[in-house]
Amino acid sequence: MPIQGYHSLRNLVKLSKLEIPQDILDVIEPIKENDAAIRQYGIDQAVKMMQELFNSGEVFGLHVYTLNREVATMQILKRLGLWMSEPRRPLPWKMTANHMRKEDVRPIFWGSRPKSYVYRTQEWDDFPNGRWGDSSSPAFGELNDYHLFYLKSKASKEQQLKMWGEELSCPEDVFEIFTCYLSGEPNRYGTKVTQMPWNDTEVTGETALLLDKLMSINKRGVLTINSQPNVNGQPSTDPVFGWGPPGGYVYQKAYLEFFTSRENVAALLEVLQEYPQINYHVVNHTGKDDITNADRLKPNAVTWGVFPGSEIWQPTVVDPISFMYWKDEAFGLWTNHWGDLYNEDSKSRQIINYFHDTYYLVNLVDNDFPKENILFELIEKMLERRAVKETTEEEPSFDQVEAEHFQKKIKLDSDENSKDPFPNGVK
Amino acid sequence: MPIQGYHSLRNLVKLSKLEIPQDILDVIEPIKENDAAIRQYGIDQAVKMMQELFNSGEVFGLHVYTLNREVATMQILKRLGLWMSEPRRPLPWKMTANHMRKEDVRPIFWGSRPKSYVYRTQEWDDFPNGRWGDSSSPAFGELNDYHLFYLKSKASKEQQLKMWGEELSCPEDVFEIFTCYLSGEPNRYGTKVTQMPWNDTEVTGETALLLDKLMSINKRGVLTINSQPNVNGQPSTDPVFGWGPPGGYVYQKAYLEFFTSRENVAALLEVLQEYPQINYHVVNHTGKDDITNADRLKPNAVTWGVFPGSEIWQPTVVDPISFMYWKDEAFGLWTNHWGDLYNEDSKSRQIINYFHDTYYLVNLVDNDFPKENILFELIEKMLERRAVKETTEEEPSFDQVEAEHFQKKIKLDSDENSKDPFPNGVK
Repeated sequence: MPIQGYHSLRNLVKLSKLEIPQDILDVIEPIKENDAAIRQYGIDQAVKMMQELFNSGEVFGLHVYTLNREVATMQILKRLGLWMSEPRRPLPWKMTANHMRKEDVRPIFWGSRPKSYVYRTQEWDDFPNGRWGDSSSPAFGELNDYHLFYLKSKASKEQQLKMWGEELSCPEDVFEIFTCYLSGEPNRYGTKVTQMPWNDTEVTGETALLLDKLMSINKRGVLTINSQPNVNGQPSTDPVFGWGPPGGYVYQKAYLEFFTSRENVAALLEVLQEYPQINYHVVNHTGKDDITNADRLKPNAVTWGVFPGSEIWQPTVVDPISFMYWKDEAFGLWTNHWGDLYNEDSKSRQIINYFHDTYYLVNLVDNDFPKENILFELIEKMLERRAVKETTEEEPSFDQVEAEHFQKKIKLDSDENSKDPFPNGVK
Repeated sequence: MPIQGYHSLRNLVKLSKLEIPQDILDVIEPIKENDAAIRQYGIDQAVKMMQELFNSGEVFGLHVYTLNREVATMQILKRLGLWMSEPRRPLPWKMTANHMRKEDVRPIFWGSRPKSYVYRTQEWDDFPNGRWGDSSSPAFGELNDYHLFYLKSKASKEQQLKMWGEELSCPEDVFEIFTCYLSGEPNRYGTKVTQMPWNDTEVTGETALLLDKLMSINKRGVLTINSQPNVNGQPSTDPVFGWGPPGGYVYQKAYLEFFTSRENVAALLEVLQEYPQINYHVVNHTGKDDITNADRLKPNAVTWGVFPGSEIWQPTVVDPISFMYWKDEAFGLWTNHWGDLYNEDSKSRQIINYFHDTYYLVNLVDNDFPKENILFELIEKMLERRAVKETTEEEPSFDQVEAEHFQKKIKLDSDENSKDPFPNGVK
């Protein structure tokens, strides 16, 4: 361990009952108030010692203790030429520290909630390896309140209210929160929205590339919670998209996942007829509406890599069965993370319930990854089509929906209503 | 089953104890000597019947018996609009008719000897599915004389002698046979070399693209038995490289497999130092020399495809363990298919034994598939390097080698000799 500071050195000496050599003390004592100087001296000393040891020809490895202070160690390794200039992501998602989990494939859905995925798969004996495979029933742990609570955001209720709105008066207020999360601009309460119930952290590098397009559709009620651009063979060392060992090539299919209204979904299902290269999956919170053109037992690899001397790595899939498990969690987050912030009979709470009860969760994969990402064009067409339908079909306002919906909630959930919500849609 | 001919119709009537309707007999009897006319009539009748059945709205499928005569059935399906204009290859290699074999990955080595692969894996309960995986010991059936004999070429001994040389007087005679197989030009006996011990059939489409380069190196003693060009995302409907369902993209890493002399291999191992993107595997017939830079438990996918709504398909791999099984078969074919044609103490037999005993089997994979195939450049450098070595190290002629080799065969096979044949090579 390099000398990191005057006081830590004193403590270590006391604990180890060793004496500090006089020539070191001679240097350190006069600068004992200057932490930076002592740390620099510690680095210099360590580099010198390690070089001597390596040059002796007797020593083939050294163990450096960091005790959670990695800066000096990084400096030392850089000076010794042992530091990889760009520490690589081994896989596109963050791996867990638990080495018992020998996994290298995950569904994309938990991309922003890796802790939840780890929690819900903690009972698995075997993890998918090499590929997700044809699993007719991945046994995800039951979703329960404990789980939703346990994995709740670390922000306080006050912080959350400031981010997600102390009072919501219409659905557009919610659109605005989603948009602020993406833009990084403060919301109307002057607070930055640094997390969302579906995203533990701020917007990351990859999403940033789609930011303008995402903001534009969120404003209009396409509430995105996950996305990735297409990638056609970027080097595995690419700073944004790269992962895995050097010398490989990485690929992605464009992906978009969002909540949107029943009317938008009806328009979407019509527009999708013109886009055979797109896989879609649409569900409501009960799962009674469950519409997809994908094979229900076949995962779709949406991130993969080709590396020297390996089979193809395919670490991220869109899996129709996992999506149904994720759906419960994604809808649950509306009410358990967001709605719970408000009084039970407040309008704000009603609005969040309205999203939970009437919105659909949609995922879209553009399979034609070498061509331009067509998903946003598709969304624009959906919004156009919906606008046309509105002028002819007269859409009810939120207040009307509210009146009908909350007063007749039981009826809305009945079988009759859910039987065929999209007579023009693809089943 | 459509009426295929007069005699087959009579036989069927006899067997089935049915009567032919008079209006059919009236047409057929006058043209009973005209097979083509009867077959055309059978097609017309079948199309008419099938159209009526389909138009009835009661019939949703029909089973057509071909009894191994598929021409009429193809015509019928084409007339009914049920024939796919371009029957697609479901996988890049020919699948077996045995539907118990649920497999979709194979090592590339048996590419030109699929029957042998099926034979050697017939005891397998499970076949690799989705990927080859980390199999530390694929249990290939034992190679034995029965097997080599059973799968022998269907050409007669006379035909084989005409193709592969009635008399061989020097190694270059063998180089010439390999080259003639590729060029399609008759050999010096005026016979076309339509097969080789390692290739059941004539040169196919893909190899044709590399033909000039392959011929050029075979002439100079790099005796290729398998190869594929690199492919960087061709549509799955591509007539040469395409396979799998439409809407996908197929890929290949360039591959080259050949026998070559110990001197060439020594030069190759030196040149390979400059090509880190290449995986190589070099073995001699005993397997005592076994040199590779690949992970011995990791297969390398050399053909893969990306399709809508699927995980990545990776149907062809270069697998270091399988290569050791293939090595026995590939060396065995020298002596059992070729050497056996000649008298035991003939010079021709000695020459074939010389290849078996002293040549190395080499496979090369260029992992950098988006860039130009670099394998032929590598081979040219190997031949240059070898030429330089020759002028300095004075290579022995075949007759010298023959004298030393066959008189001291036991010594050559001894451990001492095989211990470190490539002091400059990579182990």
